Amino acid sequence: MPHPNDPKLRSFISVDPTSDFPIQNLPYGVFSARGLAPRVGVAIGDYVLDLWELEQDGRFAFGEIGVFSQSSLNPFMALGPKAWSKTRARISELLRHDHPELRDNEELRKRALAPMREARLHLPLAVSGYTDFYSSREHATNVGVMFRGKDNALQPNWLHMPIGYNGRASTVVVSGTKVKRPRGQLKPPNADAPSFGACKRLDFELEMGVVVGQASTMGEMLTEQQAEEMIFGFVILNDWSARDIQQWEYVPLGPFQAKAFATSISPWIVTREALEPFRLHGPQQDPQPLPYLRQAQPNNYDMELDVSLRAPSMNAAQSICRTNFKYMYWSSVQQLVHHASSGCAMNVGDLLGSGTISGPEKHQRGSLLEISWNGTEPVALDGGIKRSFLEDGDSLVMRGWCQGDGYRVGFGEVEGTILPAE
Amino acid sequence: MPHPNDPKLRSFISVDPTSDFPIQNLPYGVFSARGLAPRVGVAIGDYVLDLWELEQDGRFAFGEIGVFSQSSLNPFMALGPKAWSKTRARISELLRHDHPELRDNEELRKRALAPMREARLHLPLAVSGYTDFYSSREHATNVGVMFRGKDNALQPNWLHMPIGYNGRASTVVVSGTKVKRPRGQLKPPNADAPSFGACKRLDFELEMGVVVGQASTMGEMLTEQQAEEMIFGFVILNDWSARDIQQWEYVPLGPFQAKAFATSISPWIVTREALEPFRLHGPQQDPQPLPYLRQAQPNNYDMELDVSLRAPSMNAAQSICRTNFKYMYWSSVQQLVHHASSGCAMNVGDLLGSGTISGPEKHQRGSLLEISWNGTEPVALDGGIKRSFLEDGDSLVMRGWCQGDGYRVGFGEVEGTILPAE
Repeated sequence: MPHPNDPKLRSFISVDPTSDFPIQNLPYGVFSARGLAPRVGVAIGDYVLDLWELEQDGRFAFGEIGVFSQSSLNPFMALGPKAWSKTRARISELLRHDHPELRDNEELRKRALAPMREARLHLPLAVSGYTDFYSSREHATNVGVMFRGKDNALQPNWLHMPIGYNGRASTVVVSGTKVKRPRGQLKPPNADAPSFGACKRLDFELEMGVVVGQASTMGEMLTEQQAEEMIFGFVILNDWSARDIQQWEYVPLGPFQAKAFATSISPWIVTREALEPFRLHGPQQDPQPLPYLRQAQPNNYDMELDVSLRAPSMNAAQSICRTNFKYMYWSSVQQLVHHASSGCAMNVGDLLGSGTISGPEKHQRGSLLEISWNGTEPVALDGGIKRSFLEDGDSLVMRGWCQGDGYRVGFGEVEGTILPAE
Repeated sequence: MPHPNDPKLRSFISVDPTSDFPIQNLPYGVFSARGLAPRVGVAIGDYVLDLWELEQDGRFAFGEIGVFSQSSLNPFMALGPKAWSKTRARISELLRHDHPELRDNEELRKRALAPMREARLHLPLAVSGYTDFYSSREHATNVGVMFRGKDNALQPNWLHMPIGYNGRASTVVVSGTKVKRPRGQLKPPNADAPSFGACKRLDFELEMGVVVGQASTMGEMLTEQQAEEMIFGFVILNDWSARDIQQWEYVPLGPFQAKAFATSISPWIVTREALEPFRLHGPQQDPQPLPYLRQAQPNNYDMELDVSLRAPSMNAAQSICRTNFKYMYWSSVQQLVHHASSGCAMNVGDLLGSGTISGPEKHQRGSLLEISWNGTEPVALDGGIKRSFLEDGDSLVMRGWCQGDGYRVGFGEVEGTILPAE
């Protein structure tokens, strides 16, 4: 049987070469359509494959029944990496152009394939914990230069560990969810005292999110290998940020309300296995990391990323950032190893944000803070529109994909539109 | 019917005046005994009242069935404050010395009352999110003086909002769970580079934990009244801290692995209603808080707190801190209002740590960092034992209670013993 990543595979469902969802991808999501309850599906071209229909029809053999009838991927993820791999191979088989089982079963095809335009996509996982890292050297350096000057740009600890903090899991939402401008305490540098009001410096942060699919034991560390096997897949993540709230609140315990109001993710979890062909080594790490953080294999990915902004008066979104996940200094595997290094237990459904993904070039900056250089160089959009930070009605779209030979493994998009604070 | 807080109430179960669990308390927990699955119980004297047995026997009238058969309080908490109040009144009635329903039903009494010494106590809630505040002025000042000197002790934002950060929910454990000394990156001030190893400056932090029993809506703020009604109850909380890991990692995003390895809580959730008689005003707040944080009512509690330490060679634990919850500058209600102020959604089962509770006097310091003044003044224990920080085998016990006239509303204890790092 050919491997599900084989570039030569074709599905009996026709898939455009520019589609994010060829048979080599098969990302998991939670969807509802035709008035039925949310369940697990897989994206294939312009369709969603209903795994619960297939499961009920006896097309999968699990120890446990009903993992695909759930409104989150967590029960399926809990089955572990062998089950993930076996299931993906089985779905690939069912969708192959030369496999008659589903192709020639019209009745089952009707039940199991829903047009994506008719499907509502839900948050694909129940987020157990949300952790946000800060692992792009370019991003950390940009922010450091802005606020501390060129000579002290990187904090002394930055090159020694993946710096991260616990985020707020309760406000992780799926693409398309509108985001209300947060209110909070603001204290401009020239003000005597803080006031409470609507955020004036609302920003996005372009990140990837790692979805942890297996638990670790409290008190135990993880090896590189163990950490990798716990990673179920990836989503695109927008870590919405209120820069002015953050500036006043974050010393000494870190960001709190500035990032607690919303975090948006793409609806499809692209599996680690589907990204396998796009692995590469990350940047050289100097100084060499401590032994527990060393990597024996390439843990970065060659993944194109794009951020587009559409102001209310614009007809179409316009790209304001084009970068690549490969620039990350600390890999997702290193982040996960570090996360468990104190004995911190990881859970099925933990979500780890990579940190803002900026690249070495100016057009590769992954936040408006960097793009507008803290508001001093507003970005110019079509129709004479300028933006230093996000305004009410703005729609922000992130997209990501790995380009194969004649196909792409993509994420779809994560979109969010800003509502006024009231 | 007398109010469940009436000091004159007596139970047909005899309760010592020094017991933490008179009929005026009725704290909720999750326990297992007699080989049965974990379920919800209430502490009364030296017994646990099995609410699932009573529910099955038709002694409660809920819309939903089975809330007490669960291994966490979350389903019961989700019923809301009116149900909490009604249930507590009903339990009080069932336990009253002058109410025959349970008192005279020997068969039911046998099924519904388990000796506490035979019960295993579990984590009483499924922790949705864990947030840790920093709201004792004395604690923040002590830490500030140690690390920044007397003139810059409090950060500029501290008097304007309850400073807090998201903690790690996955490692919240119940009293009695052993705590393995964490490992992590350490960089003493005189070292050129960090190394990875066992924490050398392991500490406790004496805190109270607020258990949030109702959800709030994403995007919506809370009033004082709304926040108060969402509070189900309180536990004692030990925010174990690795001071050396924290020192190296925490700039600029706050504590991460230094506090992610374990947080211990007491097994009984004392309800907000039971603490009602012990309310008082907190310290005068100057400057006056911004309008959203102002309080129309007293939201502090007169609650005695004690921390005891037993080194392996000692026969009994010895008190090293005696303080009071009333000293907190920011109340739990203010913390919750601030937590939701950006539009951050709160969930049933959120746990909010108060922050270390220190008082104005030297014997009221709620952490070894403060007690030993960063290791410069080790605390002297019986038998010539000295401690700057915790050593392997040390057992740390926190207790708390509100003293009424002839009875006390107490929390039991939260105990943790330190295991070596391996």
